[in-house]
Amino acid sequence: MVKIAVDMMGGDNAPGIVLEAVEKAINDFKDLEIILFGDEKQYTLNHERIEFRHCSEKIEMEDEPVRAIKRKKDSSMVRMAEAVKSGEADGCVSAGNTGALMSAGLFIVGRIKGVARPALVVTLPTIDGKGFVFLDVGANADAKPEHLLQYAQLGNIYAQKIRGIQQPKISLLNIGTEPAKGNALTKKTYQLLKDEATIRFNGNIEAKTLMEGDTDVVVTDGYTGNMVLKNIEGTAKSIGKMLKGTLLANLKNKLAAAILKKDISKFAKKLDYAEYGGSVLLGLDGTVVKAHGSSNARAFYSAIRQAKIAGDEQIVKIMRETVGSDNE
Amino acid sequence: MVKIAVDMMGGDNAPGIVLEAVEKAINDFKDLEIILFGDEKQYTLNHERIEFRHCSEKIEMEDEPVRAIKRKKDSSMVRMAEAVKSGEADGCVSAGNTGALMSAGLFIVGRIKGVARPALVVTLPTIDGKGFVFLDVGANADAKPEHLLQYAQLGNIYAQKIRGIQQPKISLLNIGTEPAKGNALTKKTYQLLKDEATIRFNGNIEAKTLMEGDTDVVVTDGYTGNMVLKNIEGTAKSIGKMLKGTLLANLKNKLAAAILKKDISKFAKKLDYAEYGGSVLLGLDGTVVKAHGSSNARAFYSAIRQAKIAGDEQIVKIMRETVGSDNE
Repeated sequence: MVKIAVDMMGGDNAPGIVLEAVEKAINDFKDLEIILFGDEKQYTLNHERIEFRHCSEKIEMEDEPVRAIKRKKDSSMVRMAEAVKSGEADGCVSAGNTGALMSAGLFIVGRIKGVARPALVVTLPTIDGKGFVFLDVGANADAKPEHLLQYAQLGNIYAQKIRGIQQPKISLLNIGTEPAKGNALTKKTYQLLKDEATIRFNGNIEAKTLMEGDTDVVVTDGYTGNMVLKNIEGTAKSIGKMLKGTLLANLKNKLAAAILKKDISKFAKKLDYAEYGGSVLLGLDGTVVKAHGSSNARAFYSAIRQAKIAGDEQIVKIMRETVGSDNE
Repeated sequence: MVKIAVDMMGGDNAPGIVLEAVEKAINDFKDLEIILFGDEKQYTLNHERIEFRHCSEKIEMEDEPVRAIKRKKDSSMVRMAEAVKSGEADGCVSAGNTGALMSAGLFIVGRIKGVARPALVVTLPTIDGKGFVFLDVGANADAKPEHLLQYAQLGNIYAQKIRGIQQPKISLLNIGTEPAKGNALTKKTYQLLKDEATIRFNGNIEAKTLMEGDTDVVVTDGYTGNMVLKNIEGTAKSIGKMLKGTLLANLKNKLAAAILKKDISKFAKKLDYAEYGGSVLLGLDGTVVKAHGSSNARAFYSAIRQAKIAGDEQIVKIMRETVGSDNE
């Protein structure tokens, strides 16, 4: 049995999509228990494996993260994180304010002893539909080579346990494939990764080949990772806009577009990283999954499933033993 | 009259496309003179405003840059750069080995006195077709806030003189729009740019909105700039592949694709940054334009025109007076 704490109040479409996702998850997984935190007036479910707890407060998208976590003690997000801290829940899921959730992770759940910096990880799409694990996408803007080494170790476990890849290929994001390429950070990190026996280091990878599916885990600092993540998102969106403009330019094109519509939306879906579940703050002493703010029920369901698998696979325990100071 | 030195031997399609581009440029611009460096056996033109100079060597794409520049003294690239250094030519254009051209720029042409680091600048496409000036895209992987300030000043002049924008909006590439966002480098740079009276600073810009056309110049360090440049390229390419796969998936789609073909290639062209000319190494004491290695004649022609405009507008002289130490 795995127990997941869920924030009913976070995200653009809460609590509707959260309730829908929780209901589906609880029906699909017979070994799942959920503790749901939110406003009792909006709670509509009733299931023996769902425990509902009323919260009088809610963290808003525009709240200043650290402040919100410290002040709104009875918010659904804070109480959800406390359930993980206390050991009551194995992990938690929220679609709320990203900064606040990271703060809740850091200040309430806390780091694994020996992990210097937690990292935010996402799974990004590739052309072949396989995807790759990408971290850090923004937990820490500045990072040192030793931090990137730990990200590689955390990402390695994540890819093994959550994505089922036995010996994940780990790559370092860089501006060239040769070992001597890059800035001071990537040059030093290359050496550390090359010398690390516990991972299968596959060398540097360039941003232009990320989507080609040649690797399983890509490691970078939070500034670069966030930059690249938003850049992929923005480029895809801009191209989508231009494509749409072309398809609707005249009657002739509109007719052709009608024929293609279904297939084009299928391929657009392939690019949608919400399909791959939420992002996870790795290196914390408990699983914290962030579902996209604009999640629909299916995306939020994926995020719950992700937290459940992390619980099943005991990834926090493994990280504690292999990356944290329990390893020394 | 502007005199441009041209490397006939650089790039995947040399010397064919170079000769074609030179011929068109010399016919289009009556106030242009060209000194062409290359193998006399392959020189086919004859024009009173083209001076041909034979070179016995050629720098290859796989040559180690600094070494090649130091050893291949009679290569077309080295001799072209020397023509700029001596003042014979106002600027130069090559589609050859990028690293070697940067080295030739640094070691032969040399920096403007007072410019700490030259920056590589490109013009990137936007949805509205206007484009924006982006630097540094890889001249220096590591940069300090003062370097980024100089990049902003150089980019400002470039946007004014080459792109004809009177008061260019200058933005700092960052992982959030708020002033306090980013890594140590961008936080400090934000303050420097905000306090600089000679530019119109427009705040931070995120990688996801780059293509929306809201700004004229985007400043970043060479590591991030190169990363984003390659990422845009790679994402566009991957989406193109997926789109192509969809369009050719079955007979029905192929028919629809046939209708759309012309318009889709039109919009793909909008995304092709070769259309905007070459990249320029700014901050050197002479104009050095790098045409894309796979340039066709039209792209190489654009690069020559770019060097010519830089000559007409005397941008090196202006940079010397406003950014270099002549300004003090």
